[in-house]
Amino acid sequence: MATKDVFESSDSVRHSKPLRYAQYFTLSNPLLLEKGGRLPSVTVAYETYGRLNPARDNAILICHALSGDSHVTRHHPGDDPGWWEIMVGPGKPIDTDRYFVICPNLLGGCRGTTGPGSINPETGKPYGRDFPTITVRDMVEVQRHLLDHLQIPQLLAVVGGSVGGHQALTWATNYPERVRGVVALATSPRLTAQALAFDVVARNAIIRDPHFHGGQYYDKPHGPKVGLALARMIGHITYLSPEAMNEKFEPDRLQPRDVAIEFEKRFSVGSYLGYQGQRFVERFDANSYVTLSLAMDFFDLGRTPEELARTFSRARCRWLVISFSSDWLFPPEQSRDIVNALVANHAPVSYCNVQSNCGHDAFLLEHELPVYGGMTRAFLANLQAASNASAPLQEDPHGPTSIFHQHRLDYDRIMELIPPEASVLDLGCGSGGLLWRLKQANHRRLVGVELDEQNILTCIQRDLDVIQADLNKGLAAFGNDEFDCVILSRTLQAVLDVENVITEMLRIGRTGIVSIPNFAYHRLRRMLAEEGRAPKSGGVLPYEWYNTPNIRFFTIADFEEFCRRKRICIHRRIALDTEANTEVFEDANLNADLAIFCLSRGE
Amino acid sequence: MATKDVFESSDSVRHSKPLRYAQYFTLSNPLLLEKGGRLPSVTVAYETYGRLNPARDNAILICHALSGDSHVTRHHPGDDPGWWEIMVGPGKPIDTDRYFVICPNLLGGCRGTTGPGSINPETGKPYGRDFPTITVRDMVEVQRHLLDHLQIPQLLAVVGGSVGGHQALTWATNYPERVRGVVALATSPRLTAQALAFDVVARNAIIRDPHFHGGQYYDKPHGPKVGLALARMIGHITYLSPEAMNEKFEPDRLQPRDVAIEFEKRFSVGSYLGYQGQRFVERFDANSYVTLSLAMDFFDLGRTPEELARTFSRARCRWLVISFSSDWLFPPEQSRDIVNALVANHAPVSYCNVQSNCGHDAFLLEHELPVYGGMTRAFLANLQAASNASAPLQEDPHGPTSIFHQHRLDYDRIMELIPPEASVLDLGCGSGGLLWRLKQANHRRLVGVELDEQNILTCIQRDLDVIQADLNKGLAAFGNDEFDCVILSRTLQAVLDVENVITEMLRIGRTGIVSIPNFAYHRLRRMLAEEGRAPKSGGVLPYEWYNTPNIRFFTIADFEEFCRRKRICIHRRIALDTEANTEVFEDANLNADLAIFCLSRGE
Repeated sequence: MATKDVFESSDSVRHSKPLRYAQYFTLSNPLLLEKGGRLPSVTVAYETYGRLNPARDNAILICHALSGDSHVTRHHPGDDPGWWEIMVGPGKPIDTDRYFVICPNLLGGCRGTTGPGSINPETGKPYGRDFPTITVRDMVEVQRHLLDHLQIPQLLAVVGGSVGGHQALTWATNYPERVRGVVALATSPRLTAQALAFDVVARNAIIRDPHFHGGQYYDKPHGPKVGLALARMIGHITYLSPEAMNEKFEPDRLQPRDVAIEFEKRFSVGSYLGYQGQRFVERFDANSYVTLSLAMDFFDLGRTPEELARTFSRARCRWLVISFSSDWLFPPEQSRDIVNALVANHAPVSYCNVQSNCGHDAFLLEHELPVYGGMTRAFLANLQAASNASAPLQEDPHGPTSIFHQHRLDYDRIMELIPPEASVLDLGCGSGGLLWRLKQANHRRLVGVELDEQNILTCIQRDLDVIQADLNKGLAAFGNDEFDCVILSRTLQAVLDVENVITEMLRIGRTGIVSIPNFAYHRLRRMLAEEGRAPKSGGVLPYEWYNTPNIRFFTIADFEEFCRRKRICIHRRIALDTEANTEVFEDANLNADLAIFCLSRGE
Repeated sequence: MATKDVFESSDSVRHSKPLRYAQYFTLSNPLLLEKGGRLPSVTVAYETYGRLNPARDNAILICHALSGDSHVTRHHPGDDPGWWEIMVGPGKPIDTDRYFVICPNLLGGCRGTTGPGSINPETGKPYGRDFPTITVRDMVEVQRHLLDHLQIPQLLAVVGGSVGGHQALTWATNYPERVRGVVALATSPRLTAQALAFDVVARNAIIRDPHFHGGQYYDKPHGPKVGLALARMIGHITYLSPEAMNEKFEPDRLQPRDVAIEFEKRFSVGSYLGYQGQRFVERFDANSYVTLSLAMDFFDLGRTPEELARTFSRARCRWLVISFSSDWLFPPEQSRDIVNALVANHAPVSYCNVQSNCGHDAFLLEHELPVYGGMTRAFLANLQAASNASAPLQEDPHGPTSIFHQHRLDYDRIMELIPPEASVLDLGCGSGGLLWRLKQANHRRLVGVELDEQNILTCIQRDLDVIQADLNKGLAAFGNDEFDCVILSRTLQAVLDVENVITEMLRIGRTGIVSIPNFAYHRLRRMLAEEGRAPKSGGVLPYEWYNTPNIRFFTIADFEEFCRRKRICIHRRIALDTEANTEVFEDANLNADLAIFCLSRGE
């Protein structure tokens, strides 16, 4: 039992057999490289799945990570499993019944595409360390040639995790006209100093292995096996979260698994790492490892928010960015940097930091598949629907029981306050009920901010752009006056840092629309005054005092006083009695249980 | 500028010169080892600072970490700096004007104490890999012989961080009668699987270095320099937090520092690691590294809470446990495991997870010194005061302006509810005002739980045991019926998970004493009923609705109803009008602004 799980690896250790279904394409000209130099001849190994439609607009490019290859999934039930079996295939999130999937092996790799182990046509020998320094951009350039060869003018989407994500980001920013959508998982605009440091140590282990021979080891009896195995061991630690490692190796810490390895075999985790290292050496080339990890380390879309915004200003596609909470190699903060740069460019983007214990490997594992797979599936369907001009206007996938179909007087009134075609940011958008209504009314730019994962999934299924963020600290990405209207609907009472959220909303939007429950509503007043009980109501305050998400208690009068003090202009106030489903015109602070304010910064 | 900071290392790279002030002591008998085998002869190198007092009870043992040595600080202003200069010396937190400080080099090390590089008297050659497997317990055993030699029957304290902390924990649990206090910084009951994994890779790098020669490299022209340097590079990454690495290396990522190294020198962080690795090889022995890191990996006080509780049941000392928030090598959770095991044994312990960006190295750096140094200073002073029978009853260090000196009617009443000599847990104890009063009344066991770092420091300065925890999730460590009374004074209104906190307090204490602000106090009712404003008061609710820490609003009647529903017995209720400074006997829910309840679990 314990032994079985040694052999499970999220990374693609699955097949060292030759790639039976790989196709090969050779570039017609030498490839000029970003950092100078050229490759006289480049061949790409790639596999395809599904069928290209007559319009040639259903192609999805999947970019693999450091040690992957073109075999992303099975070609038929009897085939060897691919490295992303859970995501790609008939009926899977990347549905090969609907899409034409292309997965090429990376330039510089060792699974069919030209790399340091390939024969240099100019010398007749393997390149070895003469293989030039390549970049992620060069990898993408090769893929672009492949698409030209396949006569695919524009990809429906590029999908990639980790270094695959680096390629996807590069596609969108270097060939904007050829990409309609990007799904970027567990990736970053450039490595953290820590991730880069691990790469440096890994390369030093390889390069200083006496069997490395300056990279010219192909004709030697031994290659730098120990160095490459050490590099792989370091990698494996960084792919797993500390929690996952404890779960996997703590129960039997002192019982090494029964594997034949030439490394220390004292501890459970040691036998795992030794085994993974040793297996890796059998299927991977050390020069490729050095070449690809350097390309990863040189990858850099910018360090500051300004640099990143400039890079991403070139993109023209829609985006789905997904990070994983326990990923410390490509930490969620870096995905947020990408999202912030996209937001700064008003690019259509959805983002979710998926709660996970699986570390960087999460995007390769089944645990959180319902979330990240579900989001990917919906995002791709939205892209395809948008490209299909004859498709009917989308229906709300949440059907007649959705919020949209419930009559919401406050939504009616809020809708009336928003000018036609205004751009709108909805803070705390929930499952997107209000945004969905605005979308039917053809508003220009609609973005939601939400914390809950399931709500975000629902928003994406409704073809809404939604960004996961905590209102108390996550709004800095939005620029000044970026939206015509910013909405905070029935949310302020659940916010800890009220001043900051209001200040932020009026910085981001020319107009702020805030709806608040009124604690001074007559029924609530009476509860406290006459019964001596904390007010609650079926309409707006249905909770008990000890379990309510509402942590701020205030009245219409309090909020108006707050606005006066903070020099916030109230342009309009609409008071409602939602229990009676009527608007209130007299003594709102007594008779309304909800009020909607139209605000702006004071002069 | 940038170059200077390459050379700064928190770890002890400061001196590779011989130890001028080291003294040496040789054990009179062979040392029998925990894992079997023996060392025929053991010599310890150690340094001492300050003076042993006539009572011989002011000695502090400092245990160093993996690559440290006996030179913990300067012996005089002209001396080389030591590795913990900031903490040890005249007037420093570990004050050599008050204490006699002893710092020995570790068994198995290479800075004077017997290790694999020492001559094996039985062969006349260095031990090399014939050096037996040693454990932290063996290291401590050697230190115990040294104390016997110095005729120190009992240590005032053992202080150690990281592996030094492992030694301190071992002292307290193996020689309980010889230790009055332990300061354990950035340590753990055993390594995480992740930390152990890094050690495995580091050892594999050394052992598989062709120049290792099975450990018999002392007579060879080269030792396993590359392997040891790689091990050190991995170590350095784990000592720093990701934030600290970004700060240090991101601004000039592509500019390697100008150092002469034989490792990859492409990136700023690479030049740093290469330099640290190469320097380390000059002063450290690879066999020692393997020996000490194995001892660290075998260190294990227990995996489950039950095992840990059993181990720590042997201890008899007072404890100060400190972790650092960004330490991912010895993560705070592991310090909490230690604290929980001590709490389960009713051991006197204070704990703080110091907010820091400095990673594992934080305990060696100045950034958070005011906090962890301040706590250590106060803790040691308390130990010394306790041992000095003739010392006067301690005065409140917070003087006449402290809470103690303010008249607090609610404290008076709470004090009356607590039986003489009862054990008391104060949840949300603040700076310890109530606990301090109870201490003067000679209560048996007093423990505070608090979140704020400065409050914790103040509590320790007041010689109170205080544990940092979030009331919403941190109380599981306390056992059922562990305290006679558990107090929640003016805190419930700031708690998110009210049900859980009340349930927990009544699980932990036979009696719960809860004081709550009453939202139905007549002045507050009137504010809402007549003015339509969210209630606030100068006495108990002095905040604005938008910035108050109080997030639960309820009345005496609400709380009583809550208790009925949850089958909680209310044994007594005391209602106060704190504005008028009087007790309220009629219509408490209207006339009291604060109520104190004496509760227990219902049958």
